[in-house]
This record gives sequence, C-alpha cells and structure tokens, in this order.
Amino acid sequence: MNNQIYKVTLIHNGQKKEMTCPQGTNLMELLQENKIYLEAPCGGKGLCGKCKIRVESGNLSELTSDEDRLLSNKEKAEGYRLACSTWIMGDAVVSLDDSSDTAQIVSRGLEYSVDINPSVSKEFLTIESPSVEDQRDDLKRLEDALNMRYTFIPLGLMQRLPSLLRDNDYKVTAVYDRNNILAIESGNTANEQYGIAVDIGTTTVVCYLVDLVNGKQLDVASRLNAQKSYGGDVISRIAYAADKAEGLKRLQMEITSQLEEMIKGLASKNKIELEHIYNIVIAANTTMIHLFAGLPPEHIAAAPFTPVATRLMVYPAEQFGVNINSACRIFVLPSISGYVGADIVAGILSTGMDKSDDLSLMIDIGTNGEMVLGNKEGLISCSTAAGPAFEGANIRNGVGGVAGAINTVRLEDDDIRYTTISGMPPIGICGSGIVDVLAVLLDAGIIDETGRILPADEIESEIGKKLKERLTEVDDMPAFIIAKGEETRSGEPIVMTQKDVREIQLAKAAIAAGTRVIVQKMGKSMGEIKRLYLAGGFGSYIDKRNAVRIGLLPKELEHQIIAVGNAAGTGALLSLLSRKLIQRSNIIKTMVKYVELSTSPEFQEEYVNCMYFD
Amino acid sequence: MNNQIYKVTLIHNGQKKEMTCPQGTNLMELLQENKIYLEAPCGGKGLCGKCKIRVESGNLSELTSDEDRLLSNKEKAEGYRLACSTWIMGDAVVSLDDSSDTAQIVSRGLEYSVDINPSVSKEFLTIESPSVEDQRDDLKRLEDALNMRYTFIPLGLMQRLPSLLRDNDYKVTAVYDRNNILAIESGNTANEQYGIAVDIGTTTVVCYLVDLVNGKQLDVASRLNAQKSYGGDVISRIAYAADKAEGLKRLQMEITSQLEEMIKGLASKNKIELEHIYNIVIAANTTMIHLFAGLPPEHIAAAPFTPVATRLMVYPAEQFGVNINSACRIFVLPSISGYVGADIVAGILSTGMDKSDDLSLMIDIGTNGEMVLGNKEGLISCSTAAGPAFEGANIRNGVGGVAGAINTVRLEDDDIRYTTISGMPPIGICGSGIVDVLAVLLDAGIIDETGRILPADEIESEIGKKLKERLTEVDDMPAFIIAKGEETRSGEPIVMTQKDVREIQLAKAAIAAGTRVIVQKMGKSMGEIKRLYLAGGFGSYIDKRNAVRIGLLPKELEHQIIAVGNAAGTGALLSLLSRKLIQRSNIIKTMVKYVELSTSPEFQEEYVNCMYFD
Repeated sequence: MNNQIYKVTLIHNGQKKEMTCPQGTNLMELLQENKIYLEAPCGGKGLCGKCKIRVESGNLSELTSDEDRLLSNKEKAEGYRLACSTWIMGDAVVSLDDSSDTAQIVSRGLEYSVDINPSVSKEFLTIESPSVEDQRDDLKRLEDALNMRYTFIPLGLMQRLPSLLRDNDYKVTAVYDRNNILAIESGNTANEQYGIAVDIGTTTVVCYLVDLVNGKQLDVASRLNAQKSYGGDVISRIAYAADKAEGLKRLQMEITSQLEEMIKGLASKNKIELEHIYNIVIAANTTMIHLFAGLPPEHIAAAPFTPVATRLMVYPAEQFGVNINSACRIFVLPSISGYVGADIVAGILSTGMDKSDDLSLMIDIGTNGEMVLGNKEGLISCSTAAGPAFEGANIRNGVGGVAGAINTVRLEDDDIRYTTISGMPPIGICGSGIVDVLAVLLDAGIIDETGRILPADEIESEIGKKLKERLTEVDDMPAFIIAKGEETRSGEPIVMTQKDVREIQLAKAAIAAGTRVIVQKMGKSMGEIKRLYLAGGFGSYIDKRNAVRIGLLPKELEHQIIAVGNAAGTGALLSLLSRKLIQRSNIIKTMVKYVELSTSPEFQEEYVNCMYFD
Repeated sequence: MNNQIYKVTLIHNGQKKEMTCPQGTNLMELLQENKIYLEAPCGGKGLCGKCKIRVESGNLSELTSDEDRLLSNKEKAEGYRLACSTWIMGDAVVSLDDSSDTAQIVSRGLEYSVDINPSVSKEFLTIESPSVEDQRDDLKRLEDALNMRYTFIPLGLMQRLPSLLRDNDYKVTAVYDRNNILAIESGNTANEQYGIAVDIGTTTVVCYLVDLVNGKQLDVASRLNAQKSYGGDVISRIAYAADKAEGLKRLQMEITSQLEEMIKGLASKNKIELEHIYNIVIAANTTMIHLFAGLPPEHIAAAPFTPVATRLMVYPAEQFGVNINSACRIFVLPSISGYVGADIVAGILSTGMDKSDDLSLMIDIGTNGEMVLGNKEGLISCSTAAGPAFEGANIRNGVGGVAGAINTVRLEDDDIRYTTISGMPPIGICGSGIVDVLAVLLDAGIIDETGRILPADEIESEIGKKLKERLTEVDDMPAFIIAKGEETRSGEPIVMTQKDVREIQLAKAAIAAGTRVIVQKMGKSMGEIKRLYLAGGFGSYIDKRNAVRIGLLPKELEHQIIAVGNAAGTGALLSLLSRKLIQRSNIIKTMVKYVELSTSPEFQEEYVNCMYFD
C-alpha cells in the first residue's frame, strides 16, 4: 500500500458522484463512507453475493474466489463485482443498478379514523407589553397569555425570549406540549405544524410526512436501512455493535443520519420548513430501537435476551443525533421484549385488536416472525427466529422486493409463468414469488410432503412430468429452474435449490409452530379466531391460498386473512396524530404477555410437526 | 502596533504567572483573559482609580492624565499604575497586592434548624439479575428495585445502564430526585452526597460546601465577582452585556467559570469527588441571575424594568456552562422583580419573617439597598438605587472590606482613632468606617445637619476645635483627614471630602426614604416593627448607633437591629438542605408585593426629607 489517493466515480440513478480514497480501500467501505448502502445480509463477508456493483473502467483488485463462485459468467463478463470483495488499486468508474438503494413499501390496509390531537400544540398569542404598573417578567407574560402555570421552558429558549417578544411586537406563536414550552415563533404560524411517522425495519426504513393540523399524510419516503451493509439480520447487527470498536456508535450514526436525511428530503420536496416539524414517532423492532438510541443491544442476542429498556422514550431529537430543530422531539414507541418490538405494539394499535371483543391473530413476517393473539381481555405474543428467507435472504437467487424481482409464479398452459416487479428482466426471486413457486411445486408433485425435490423418474403427476425439463442440479443439489438463462439479466437461470426449500421449510415451520403455541397457551382453537392480520410488505403481496398451501398460515383462517401492509408504520402514524394513542401504546405494552419459545417444549414439538407439507 | 509577542509576568500571592500578548494590549484586558480580576467599579474607564497594579520592571505605555490625577505621588514613585490605563509595549513584570482578589464574608447571624431533606436522594440497590423466566429489561429492574414507575432517565445514562449493572454485579447506588433518575454509581456510595450553596453578589461570590447527608457546612470560599472588572454595579454590567459584541456571553462565561473553579477548589481541598456534588442552589440579585443564566438583562435597566424571568429555575449545571458532572443540577431561587432578587427571597427565608406573627423589617445594604417589611400575613418590598457608596465605591478613598481598609473610626483622647482590617497600614476606608467617620464628624459639629463640612472658623464645639488641624482642601473642596500621609501605605492622607459626604447623604436618604414608604404603604408605624434584620457583610460590621446617628436606620429600631450577615447565602444553604424550603421560596415570591419607588411621589418627598442629618 502506498500513500497515493485515487478517484472513484460512481454512476447511479443518472448521476455521477466523485469519491476519493487511498490505495487498498475496500469498495464497500468507501461506499459506506459516502453514505451509499448496498444490501449485504452476510455483513460484507463475501458469502451472500448481494452487493453487486459494475466496474465500468479502472484499476481494481483481482477477482476473489468468492466472487468467482457467486457471480455468473455473464455478470463477470459485464464487469460485475462484489463491493465487499473489491479493493481500489487506482482511479476507477463504477455503476450501480438504479433499483439498488430504494425499497418498495406498502401502506394500504385498514381503514382507520382518529381524532387529531397530536402531542404538540400551537397557539398564536398577542401578549400584553410591559409598563411601570405591570412589571411582570417576559416569561410570566407568556405564561399568562397561554393561561398556564408551572411551565417548563428550555434555557436556550428563555434566553431568546426578550428579543422574540419585542422584535415581533409581542405577537408570537407558542409551540407547546401540555405545560412544556418547546418553541416560540415570530408572528402567526399556528397552521404550520408537521410530524414524521417512522418505521425502522431491519431491511427498510419508511418515513411518512404528516400535516398535524388536518391529519393528512403528505408524502412517504422509503430506503433500505443504511445499516444493511453491516449485516442483514438483527443478530449480525448486534454482533457488529458489540464486537467492533465504536460499532454501536457507527450503526447508530448510520440510522440517525439516514433518518435526518430522509426527513430533510421530505421537507424540501414538500416545501416545508424544518423548524415546523415538531414530533417524530418511531416504531421498530427492539434491536433497531437499541441501535437507534445508542443502547447496547448485546444482551438481547443471547439468553436471557435482556433489553436495556422497552419503555416509551421521549427525548429531544438532537439527543439521538437527529438534527431537525431544537424543539423537535422523538417518541420511540414501547416494546414488549427483546424480540417483540414497538413495531408489533404499533401493529396492534393499527388493527385495534386490543379493543375488540373478537379474537384476532396478527402475524408479522419480516426479517423475523412475530405473532400476537388476543382481544380486549388480553394479548399473548411470541417471536420466532424464522430468519429472513421470505425476504429473499439465504435463498440462492433470493432478492428483496426490488425491480426485476420475480414476485408471482403460477402454472399456466402446462408451464411456469412469472411476473417481475416493474416488468424488468428477472434478477432473482422475492418472498411472494418464493411462496408461489413452492406451492406450484407441491401442487405439481415435484416436491413431496417432506420437502424433497423428487428425481425426474419419481415424478408421477401429469403436470409434473411436463415440467421435468426444468429440473437441474446446482452445486450437486437438485434444483428447479424458474427463469431460464436466456430470460434473465445475468444470463444464468434463476432456480430454487433443495437447500432453498429447506430454508423455507425451517422458516414456515417456525411461524406455524409459534402460531399454534400461542393459540394453545391462550386455551383457544384456530376456529375461534375471527381475523388474521398479516403485517409487513411481504404479507401484502403474498398469495393467500399459496401461503396456506405451504403451511405458512393456518388453513382454518384462509378466508379471514387481512393484509394490513406496513402496520408498524400505520401505528406510528396514528400515534403521531393522537396523544391518546401514544398513551394507548403504553397500555398495550402492559396487556401483552410474552411467551419465550426458545425454551418451550411445546414449540419444539410443533416445530417438527410443522416442517412437513400436508 | 507590530506583531511582536511580549511576555508579562505577574507576581501575586507569592507566585509568578507568565502571560503573553501582542504589543499594545491593555493590561486590564490581559489580566481578564488570564482570569485575574481587579476591582473596577467604573468598568475600566479610568475614572475610579481602583485597579491599581505595581510595575516592577519593563516597558509600558506612558502615564495617562487619569493616572496622574488618581495616583498619589508616592504610588507613582513606587511604580503603581492603573491597569485599565496601561498598555503593554514590551516584556514586563507587574505585581498585585496580596489582598486584591479575595473578599471577606460574614456568615454569622441567625440560629436556624432545618429537617435535612434535600432535592436529591441516594439509595444503594441490589438488583435481581435476569433469567429466561424473568426477561424484564435493565431499566425496569432498576425501577422495580427503586419501587418507582414512570421514571425519567437521561438517554446518556440509559446507554450506560447495562455495563453499570453487570460490571458491578447488579449492586449500584441510584441518585434520584422524586422519579427523576440522575445518576447510577458503582457499589454503595449512598453516604457521599454533597451540595453547594451560592450567593452571587455584584461584588462578591460566596460558595458553601455542604454535606447533604448530615447537613454540615464543610467549607466556604469567597472571591470578588469575576465580572467586577466589567463594572462595579449592575447598571454598568447590564450596559456591558447589552452594548458589547458577545458582552452577555462574556459576562456569563466569567461568572460560570468562576463558580466552576470555586466548586472544584472546594472539592479538591476537602477531598470530595466532583461526581458526588449533585445540587447547587443559587441566590443572587435579579441582574446577577440574568448574567449567570445568559438571559439578556437590558430591559431591567430602564423603565418598565422588565426581567426575562423571575421564577425558580432548575436545569442541569452543564446547561449554564458549569461543568461539575452530568447529574449535577443548578437551582436558581426565584426573584420578585428586576430590583428585588432571589438574594432577598433567600434572606426572607433565612429570617423566617414570612412565617412570623411579628412585623419584621429586613434591610439589605449592598451595591443597592433593598427593604422588605411584613409578617406571615404578607410582605412588601422595594429597592432603592442607593448606589455602592457603602461599599466604598464613588468615595475618594473608599475601598471594599479588604486588608488595610479603615473599618472603625472613633473619637478618643480628643483625636481620631481608627482600626484597619488585618491591622495593615491604611489603604482607604470601607463602609463601616465611612459610617463611623460621618457620625464622628456630626457629633463633633464639623458637619452640620445639611451635610456641609464647616469652615474651621464656623466650628463651635470643643472637640470640633481640637480636630481643626485635620481639615484640609482636596480638589478645591473641603475635606477631613482621617489618616495622615505618614500613616498610610501610599503616603497620601486618607480623607473624606465634601463630595464624599454628599454621596453618602444620597445613599442613606434613599434607604431611609424607601423604608419609610413601605412602612406607610403597609399602614404601619416604625414602632410596630419588632425586629430589623440587617443583611449583608456591611450590616455585620456596622456600628448600630452610628448607623442610626447618620439616619441610615430608623432611630426607633436601634435596639431591634439584628445583623444577619450573608442572609442570601444562608437562605441558599437552607434551600440546599431542604426541598420544602425551595418550595417555600416559591411561596414567598407570591407573598411579596413590590413597590416601584422610581415613580412614587411619596418616595420623592421622603427622599428630600431624609437627606438631612437630624
């Protein structure tokens, strides 16, 4: 390594970005430093092959054996590399596919209505000016105009109070929450009042910009979680936070600065002053909350799975490192346990199942699977380490819900038909496509009830026989070709391998077994459940029949399934609009009983049973 | 001016301090930058002649006409200069008299007893460690051990909670105020709990170090207010804050860093960890509070005399710029108005006059004069711009209560006898000496009832005739020699001039008239007053008979006078020991009615009457 500094140019979304670095810099780290985040479920270890980037020109390190294995010949020929396995050896130009750092998000679902009463108020005041007969101090004048006593006011604001009053001829707008004065603004700004609802997923971050006066959702932005390149699941992020020097600080900085940027982007796009954004409500899983708040997450990772805190947190945004304005506060919704987070609390809030007479089940399939069962009498929850198979991770050709992902698969005219997101040539298969293909292969008798991909000569069904030519071998394993090489971007076929089937079996068994356990623990039967709320983006795209077919969801509930989309985001949004719902989230926290599955014999038994396909 | 950097060495209290500066630097400013503060009631304008410093060697600017006028020939011969009027032209060595930056303070006075119940508690906890059956989060464990719900905990402390618990085997000491968790300490530190009571006077800052477990006052420190060199009285400080760029910030920084240094000095001297100082209670006049808290004070200076805030303030010490530890909070006691400050509220608290059936009068003679009259039925207060004459300011040979100050004067063997503080050769005359000499001159018939110093041929009394030789002329004014040139340090006589007598007449008339007005306003007579509490260092040293003789205090109350010393400091100390007394300070604030004298015709009339000596 020498001291030479090289220039790396990134082409992305039609724009060029110049970066500089010394010789020997890892390309993934260079991108991270420049706030460009590639998916890397393996945490940049050269195992998952997801962090693909194309080299247009320049001098880079030699192809590694990992890359040789994980990239197709066509990709190699086109100059694709894995960013984690590439080091800068001279000036270079690289390009990213346009879909790489945006994520689709689903916000449809339940209809809801809520009284608009956010945890912040604004009031335009005309304050009496002082006279020798009326020597009340400035703060007292303000309090009297607000008809308040025992207010709390930040010291910095009190310092600016005299000029704020006099420069505006004693006409100002007070921003406050109960008796807590947050800001004083010049003139009448009572109608300029905005908030941000946030769902920090392990994979995706979604921000909703909301007008707190009329309750309207003005805009939404979603991005892949900037922490993605430090590991795809919560366990690898926790390991990074715990094991690397400044690891927690770095992960916190990534998510807080990402949130700050997303909010600034929304404000700028919608021509809203940052000064007028007062409340940010966050729903997230417990680990994401720890990383966001800088709370050491390591004791969540291993038994007894102890979080630092699960309560509702309210602090000034700047204390988290999110710099919007000095009056802006962040409300982090409460969690239940280390693996049932505020995203689930927010989901419960959005469905209203905590207030219903009817028994409801909510299943949130994301990077993990969480289930909640109950009604207004009480709720019971559990979490399964189902893994991110349904997000495409640990699946050979799995991808997230990005452009070019195969998202539906069906049998038609005795052959496989598929669609892709945005209709692009296929680059891989996402969760809903994975469920479909598995159901198709079960229906066609190509996979048996144990999950084995049958050899061609064992296939008995008519339709199965017609699909025989799609059977192949990959890495000495049986595999089924979903998209042929000539159809795909890389030129290599998109397949489902025997190992992929096993991954999905493990994941669906965990979710199905967890569901059965909490139903038993509550002394109920599946038949008593009136509604199954399916949360998460995956739940919205999934084919319900196929999800039941593969045993992911209980067959008794096939016609009770309601896809509620990003229920966590919806819950955060409702909490942003109503202080009563923030209080309700605290009540929900106390209503939900958590069942630990990892030490439960019932779960172990059900898990084995659920591994089979009926 | 060139770019040459020069070295200036200061000899003070037997120590050498090296300072550097460019050519042309003002010596006073150089000293301020190096945190050495000389008294300068005129604000460094070359008017008061107080900022004397001796040049031992070196190259400095020429003597100015101000210095020529304000320094004696002996002082000039010995190398004395005024720091405000001297500029550095080369390397130099200067020296300060040892008394220059310390102040005497009086803490005697009332006996008091108080239940020890400070606004902070410590509790040693043995917290249950987690298990798979007990997955409560760390914070919840802490709350349960404290038997608390809905706690507030700073984000930074929550971030350190997991390691604090685990590194100490779940044995920690919680520091809290009600449900507000301030700190968590390793092991059992429940008996290490300290606080600081502070009286920030315009002239002097006093800090008391208190053990909050047993209520003992461990130590006391006092210094001249570091802002002194920016002006001697509140009006000149306000002018500096309002008119100079960053003036307020600078004055705030001076007092907050002085307080921080004093506290660190007390902790170090008494071998106390800074981490174990949790509460600081501050009493001060309204302007000093504004300057301490960075609140713009300018609207206090002119009618309608509007403060920014007069309430009880409680903020983390670091928000004021006082860095002790992150758990340390500062409580600033409430004020009444722009000129009746928290020092008076604390004084009322220390006398208990707000709870007494008896009618009491409190007079605090400091840089201004404030008076409070009343009992448990209600209180009335006023403030007079008496000026700092009784602190020696605006008096030709006036000095503060420093070593060498003439502090008592009496007639003995037909001549003047005086004592000085520490028995040093006289350098000037302080407040108690000024009162004495005026009383002596009145008794001797040298000053008539209008305040005129009589010409030698008009003096009729036996004793007066014997003192004739002490009459002289200074600046074309009659003057009386108190200490002869051969007795004084400067070699020049210490005198009281006709102008000095007028200054004192104005000051005593303001206080006497203010007292009469509030007695009238309350519909009372002097005879009904059971006690006269005389607050302030000056009040402790004053000869009561002489104070009545010159008309400063009402003659009806000569035998009811109780000198209570630094009542403001005592009130702060009591508030530090008891949260109930902090609450009481808020009640006192609402009990006290403020009377504005500046627009009162009654005051104007009484003021003229009180100018005479009876």
